[in-house]
Amino acid sequence: MTHELYDFGMIGLGVMGRNFLLNVADDGFAALGTDINEDSVNALNEEGEGMNVKGVHTQKEFVSLLSTPRKIMLLVPAGKIVDAVIEGLLPLLDEGDIIIDGGNSHYDDTNRRYEYLKTKNIRFLGTGVSGGAEGARRGPSIMPGGDKSAWEVVKPILETVAAKVDGEPCVTYIGESSSGHYVKMVHNGIEYGLMQLIAEAYDVLKRVGGMSNDDMSALFDKWNKGRLNSYLVEISADILKQRDDELDGHLLDVILDKAKQKGTGKWTSQTAMDLGVPVPTIDAAVTMRGISAFKEFRQDMSTLYGEIHPDEVALKGDGLAKAVEEALYFSFIICYAQGMHLLAEASEELNYDLDMEGIARIWRGGCIIRAGLLEQIRGSFSNHPKLKNMISTRQFRDELHGCRESVVEVLHLTNERGISTLCMSSALQYFDAFRSERLPLNMVQAQRDYFGSHTYERIDQKGIFHTDWG
Amino acid sequence: MTHELYDFGMIGLGVMGRNFLLNVADDGFAALGTDINEDSVNALNEEGEGMNVKGVHTQKEFVSLLSTPRKIMLLVPAGKIVDAVIEGLLPLLDEGDIIIDGGNSHYDDTNRRYEYLKTKNIRFLGTGVSGGAEGARRGPSIMPGGDKSAWEVVKPILETVAAKVDGEPCVTYIGESSSGHYVKMVHNGIEYGLMQLIAEAYDVLKRVGGMSNDDMSALFDKWNKGRLNSYLVEISADILKQRDDELDGHLLDVILDKAKQKGTGKWTSQTAMDLGVPVPTIDAAVTMRGISAFKEFRQDMSTLYGEIHPDEVALKGDGLAKAVEEALYFSFIICYAQGMHLLAEASEELNYDLDMEGIARIWRGGCIIRAGLLEQIRGSFSNHPKLKNMISTRQFRDELHGCRESVVEVLHLTNERGISTLCMSSALQYFDAFRSERLPLNMVQAQRDYFGSHTYERIDQKGIFHTDWG
Repeated sequence: MTHELYDFGMIGLGVMGRNFLLNVADDGFAALGTDINEDSVNALNEEGEGMNVKGVHTQKEFVSLLSTPRKIMLLVPAGKIVDAVIEGLLPLLDEGDIIIDGGNSHYDDTNRRYEYLKTKNIRFLGTGVSGGAEGARRGPSIMPGGDKSAWEVVKPILETVAAKVDGEPCVTYIGESSSGHYVKMVHNGIEYGLMQLIAEAYDVLKRVGGMSNDDMSALFDKWNKGRLNSYLVEISADILKQRDDELDGHLLDVILDKAKQKGTGKWTSQTAMDLGVPVPTIDAAVTMRGISAFKEFRQDMSTLYGEIHPDEVALKGDGLAKAVEEALYFSFIICYAQGMHLLAEASEELNYDLDMEGIARIWRGGCIIRAGLLEQIRGSFSNHPKLKNMISTRQFRDELHGCRESVVEVLHLTNERGISTLCMSSALQYFDAFRSERLPLNMVQAQRDYFGSHTYERIDQKGIFHTDWG
Repeated sequence: MTHELYDFGMIGLGVMGRNFLLNVADDGFAALGTDINEDSVNALNEEGEGMNVKGVHTQKEFVSLLSTPRKIMLLVPAGKIVDAVIEGLLPLLDEGDIIIDGGNSHYDDTNRRYEYLKTKNIRFLGTGVSGGAEGARRGPSIMPGGDKSAWEVVKPILETVAAKVDGEPCVTYIGESSSGHYVKMVHNGIEYGLMQLIAEAYDVLKRVGGMSNDDMSALFDKWNKGRLNSYLVEISADILKQRDDELDGHLLDVILDKAKQKGTGKWTSQTAMDLGVPVPTIDAAVTMRGISAFKEFRQDMSTLYGEIHPDEVALKGDGLAKAVEEALYFSFIICYAQGMHLLAEASEELNYDLDMEGIARIWRGGCIIRAGLLEQIRGSFSNHPKLKNMISTRQFRDELHGCRESVVEVLHLTNERGISTLCMSSALQYFDAFRSERLPLNMVQAQRDYFGSHTYERIDQKGIFHTDWG
């Protein structure tokens, strides 16, 4: 099949870009790609044979073959490469053409590019794309932000390409400027939290409960059919049962316990601190990736400190599995609550004017943090459009209430045994802190006034006070 | 007493600047100050009557009265004001003059100013000053970084002014460029952690143990005579017994539990994340200040969720006090360990080439985090100059080992009762994570490879691997 002009262009034909483009072609649009790597271009042409897709080797040919206004997505590594690609494109483009940055760019960069491209009359959409390689191929969740008129132009394509849940596409216009990348960043922050929470649950089942990988796989499968239903629990079940060809055993057992990171989780924690929004469960997940990287030091420490041999466990088998399920569900709710709270505050502070319900809706499918829970979260923000922290809804109250004791129980077991559960424990502490009308931070304010004359407020009278202490 | 020329100048005569300058004058140097606020200048002249100190109203007069090379310290609010003051000074200065920024400037700003002033042949010392108003007056801890030749010039003055411990002044040249402000920032991060840990200990004693403020004050006094000896425990004892004139009761009880922050704690967490160094106890302290600010929301949550009524406490009175002391001591060690670890890594990553022992030494007196523990920390870094994380020393091993069970015990009590102890709990989890030769982050790496083809390493063979999962 040949076309005079193509509907949609992709720069960057790594696995994400290639898959996204094949997905576009699947849906009846003429799709064109290019990459500085010749092999990637050839791979696209091979894989797309017989489809409405083509790879070309030069940006000049690429631009000349796109219908105007051109719709060009970049899926290249975040950072300076994005700027370089944009600079290379600019002389070839016409006014009103559209650039969609589909990578994990930092929102500060996206703000800068958005303003810069405005001066060039190029329409820019900083766009989060989640779903990994498989999502890109079969239907990702897409979070476009920036030029609204550009969104209207690309909407038919992105809505067709995106994952569907109950017929609704997992894409919506997120808001002004960098909001699309901001929301994707927080998505990834939540992802960090959920992944670490699952890892901790696995650790408890294995080290406290002595469960086999296959039994854990079956348990995760069962959980995935219940209220913990989620992509990450689903793939963890697969991971737990995966056997290694060379090894007479499970692959998971020989995977090195050093987790890498690419920045979005860290950025979420950093921006949350700037906005004064607590996201300790995400912070904890970032911390644990950090600690995991000190593998040699941990080996030394393990030798130095030796093992803890606690008493026999009171909680075993089904009882333990039930407690861990409740603890994990509790922590999942808290992790989503922290991320959504951050978005609700950022919406005001950064003038994004986010549609919180819409975000929960488009996260229900396609993306890495898709989960049954998101239907409830969507409902909460639909019922209470001004909601900031969903732990304040009666629905989640009942669920959190019902699970809290199991979290305490699990943490008691892990603390006794020296099994680190920083993430799960942060979820409990966060919850208990928000439930506390009074926190002991009166002591902190008193200390600040004592040594730095920073003043304090009182609960029994209005005003700003200072005391000459001691 | 009159002088033709003054030895040392101060711009910014708020309480910190005024006190620091009076301290300089006490020590026999001719001290000159100025401020845009006339009242502050007059206050200095009143307070300094009969002393070798003078306040003047214009920068021109100020600069003309200083001996060259001029030694000018700024103690003005961090941020744009520092730049404005520097710009105002520049036309009046001679080559080789010295500017000392004594405020809590962000290290990025200090790097920029250091490079900028180099082009103007002005020597710059980004300098941390800790000790609050009282420390500035009686002897602070001083952390100068930047131009080393400038350090040699001001050394006699700063060494005389600084606090002394066993005759050693609490000042040393920290290192290149922004290292002085970086070290001060981490000092403040540790300070955040210690303050929150004390607040949590107070909360446990009060809410689990039902102790009165006066009894807690006596207990803190006793602790301050033992291994918890520290400025912050000392002033907490004072705070606990402070009565309010109007109230027939203790002032602490009516102080609003919303703690403010000025940024240095948050910056510590943010830079630690950039360097991949885990400091969860500092993160937790930042988080708790954040949660404390949501006072109204907490009141609503407290109504929504109600109270928890656990069983009678098994641990009371002296037993509880002992457990809390051990938990607090454990957490103090971990908090310092995190801050020192961050400095050790930053020393390499940011090319500061820090003298870790020197830093521990100058923190022993004058500053807010001064504590008996710092003598041991100094010793650790003296014995092991390449030490990064002091939990790996045998000395701290024995102390941490000895206290760990009490942390578990205290957390069990607080978790059961819904008393948030995020900071203390983070200390335990951090410790247990580093003690773990294996962490469950193999699951995280497997998930990353599953959905994003991010690859993984193995423990049984070298190389980079990817699996087609599921």
